[in-house]
Amino acid sequence: MKIFDYETRVRYAETDRMGISYYANYFVWFEAARTEYFRTLGFVYSEFEKEGIFLPVAEAHCRYMEPSSYDDLITVRTVVSQIRQSSIRFDYQVLKNHGTKPIAVGYTVHVFSGQNLKPTRIPEILKSKVELASLDPNLSNPVDTKPR
Amino acid sequence: MKIFDYETRVRYAETDRMGISYYANYFVWFEAARTEYFRTLGFVYSEFEKEGIFLPVAEAHCRYMEPSSYDDLITVRTVVSQIRQSSIRFDYQVLKNHGTKPIAVGYTVHVFSGQNLKPTRIPEILKSKVELASLDPNLSNPVDTKPR
Amino acid sequence: MKIFDYETRVRYAETDRMGISYYANYFVWFEAARTEYFRTLGFVYSEFEKEGIFLPVAEAHCRYMEPSSYDDLITVRTVVSQIRQSSIRFDYQVLKNHGTKPIAVGYTVHVFSGQNLKPTRIPEILKSKVELASLDPNLSNPVDTKPR
Amino acid sequence: MKIFDYETRVRYAETDRMGISYYANYFVWFEAARTEYFRTLGFVYSEFEKEGIFLPVAEAHCRYMEPSSYDDLITVRTVVSQIRQSSIRFDYQVLKNHGTKPIAVGYTVHVFSGQNLKPTRIPEILKSKVELASLDPNLSNPVDTKPR
Repeated sequence: MKIFDYETRVRYAETDRMGISYYANYFVWFEAARTEYFRTLGFVYSEFEKEGIFLPVAEAHCRYMEPSSYDDLITVRTVVSQIRQSSIRFDYQVLKNHGTKPIAVGYTVHVFSGQNLKPTRIPEILKSKVELASLDPNLSNPVDTKPR
Repeated sequence: MKIFDYETRVRYAETDRMGISYYANYFVWFEAARTEYFRTLGFVYSEFEKEGIFLPVAEAHCRYMEPSSYDDLITVRTVVSQIRQSSIRFDYQVLKNHGTKPIAVGYTVHVFSGQNLKPTRIPEILKSKVELASLDPNLSNPVDTKPR
Repeated sequence: MKIFDYETRVRYAETDRMGISYYANYFVWFEAARTEYFRTLGFVYSEFEKEGIFLPVAEAHCRYMEPSSYDDLITVRTVVSQIRQSSIRFDYQVLKNHGTKPIAVGYTVHVFSGQNLKPTRIPEILKSKVELASLDPNLSNPVDTKPR
Repeated sequence: MKIFDYETRVRYAETDRMGISYYANYFVWFEAARTEYFRTLGFVYSEFEKEGIFLPVAEAHCRYMEPSSYDDLITVRTVVSQIRQSSIRFDYQVLKNHGTKPIAVGYTVHVFSGQNLKPTRIPEILKSKVELASLDPNLSNPVDTKPR
């Protein structure tokens, strides 16, 4: 699996008085998308934690092109765009109501860490299963990269 | 100290598209008020946790009379209204922009617990410092109760 | 339809450093459950708002019996337990990972309101479609009430 | 005023089960810092909205170097680093417990917009009062830029 689509509905709680989804909530959706991406690969993130492996966020970015609001159906198109010795980068496109043009694009970088939050090596089993891909920021069609 | 006033400003994040503060956020303000209540008594709640004492919420209630919104100055008037062997109850009045009539009233009940979340006895030192009080739901003036 | 089950997964964002779901988030799940309850009845809540009908919360309550945490599958069993001229009350049971014993129970009361947040009458079409029910706080099996 | 320091305490609600502040909440603190930055300049952001001027977020970024957690005292050092015809960019340094090394740095870009969320020109009065500055990502001491 190179690309994973996570779907969620915008909750009332996630809107603000501008009438649109509050910007920080996109990062919460990204997190939910990562969880389901891992599950589809066969990894339950909470199992990582039981083994003392954590994935704190080192960097987060989002660009907002169009707003979303309450009850919109949100698709977070998710890929892993980079893996290093102890870090992983996810890229995201946010689609609204099955539209074809992203309303937002973003990425997060995570560092595999022990309980002390010091960097550790990414588990080999995970590394062997993740397939890298990249997303075109202007299209909803993901562009595959050559295999790692 | 019988009564403690915690002040905070409504954040944009805490509003919803009805233009008012989202209802669940009042419980977040209650939590911040409890933290400061304890600090004023001389207890840092995070120190409790270092000693393996947790205060999970067993019950939470709020009645909303008037809305609040972005940038309103919120006062959470906070008292402890009941202490039992292993539980504590806080009552709250929410005032807006130094108004005298509460816009919301609520309470939370907490169980002193070990790391396993099983009930434990309330620390004596805390019990000895807390003074019980009650709040009139219709007035902002707290009504003192007889000493415990 | 008397009873509606809404399912969601606990997000990492919804946990706190006690390792469990933060108490205020149960009210967010209640809100998401209400939205889907209405949709299943044939009402899209955002359509109410377009017609100038809002449903601010007048009262909210939750009792927490067992904790939940990250990635738990949450079922919010939802019924309407009372309808008055301009108010509606929802009751909720929270189940975890398809367990049969609720880990939390709660309710919310809402007032049908115009844009000015003044009470208005509940739309007849809605009143005619909602079937009242009640939930046993100790069992996951809902107990039907006699028809309104 | 070139630099503004906003202070807040990490709420329990803002932590996650890794024991640290959840990453998306830094963006909420940034928002609260912007509000107070404007207020100190003499602008109440809610007044902008009454005149139909909104400031939706076009871009948001944060880099996390060290974690923070419950009850930490957070300082968000805030500057405006760029103003264009209809956009404004804020840069932020996050300090913990009055430390001198930022634990996180970030920025947000906002587009002055009408109620329809279409771009509009930045109000001249605001433009005339904001003084640009920049922040060194590695130091807590801000580095002033030449005047706009």
